Amino acid sequence: MQVKESNPRPEHDSVERTLGVVGDRWSFLVLREAFFGARKFREFKDATGIAANILSDRLTKLVEHGVFQRELYGNHQNRYEYKLTEKGLDLYPIIVSMIRWGDRWMSGPDGPPLRLIHRTCGATLVPTLKCDCCGAEIQARDVTWEAG
Amino acid sequence: MQVKESNPRPEHDSVERTLGVVGDRWSFLVLREAFFGARKFREFKDATGIAANILSDRLTKLVEHGVFQRELYGNHQNRYEYKLTEKGLDLYPIIVSMIRWGDRWMSGPDGPPLRLIHRTCGATLVPTLKCDCCGAEIQARDVTWEAG
Repeated sequence: MQVKESNPRPEHDSVERTLGVVGDRWSFLVLREAFFGARKFREFKDATGIAANILSDRLTKLVEHGVFQRELYGNHQNRYEYKLTEKGLDLYPIIVSMIRWGDRWMSGPDGPPLRLIHRTCGATLVPTLKCDCCGAEIQARDVTWEAG
Repeated sequence: MQVKESNPRPEHDSVERTLGVVGDRWSFLVLREAFFGARKFREFKDATGIAANILSDRLTKLVEHGVFQRELYGNHQNRYEYKLTEKGLDLYPIIVSMIRWGDRWMSGPDGPPLRLIHRTCGATLVPTLKCDCCGAEIQARDVTWEAG
């Protein structure tokens, strides 16, 4: 993006605000599992290997921030499912961009561990960030900014 | 994404691999600043408020992972600039997706702190993740996977 020495950026920043909600490794792994279908505490725990107290802390925080909605399930009392809200589902571009970057740069000789498939068209998913207005792929050098 | 109980995911995962390079709050803030034009140690330090020893550690790690290239600058000895490599520039979709999510969900009554502008077309940038094959916006529910 363009450097603007004469135009200082505002104090508050959306990257920092996003990191305030999902800014550590464990939160990202919990989100990853949610997008791969985890709903129950045990499913998150088994898939990530996170210690129960840390997992409990992160799920509580993500519920407080409105990323997950906590719901009783079945006939159990005190058994909850954690479902992504609209706000939570909207984190998908961050997770998919991480998958894509890891696939491209960190895979090694065996290639990407997973193939994502876009069910809408059947193709191997190559997620690309595009400008909603002109449709061009977004490159950092093509973006500038002004205070909001 | 689709749940597949009968088809366990591979042990290694691209989200985890990506987090192994940029998986903490400080690394994300350093990257943010790089995309806003920071090159020198002092610029990263002033813009993020990171303690010098932590900043030094993160920059070293990001150089080791090939995200930054360290170069002597000017006539100084021992003065370096940190420039994003192609691998580093390719992290832009993650950072832009964080900006977009923070803008949309964490802005409060004052609205987004910055307006990003796509210089290619002049519009306010609304980054949207699209399938490179069919061009549709990618929704989590439309994506499935198989082992790579």
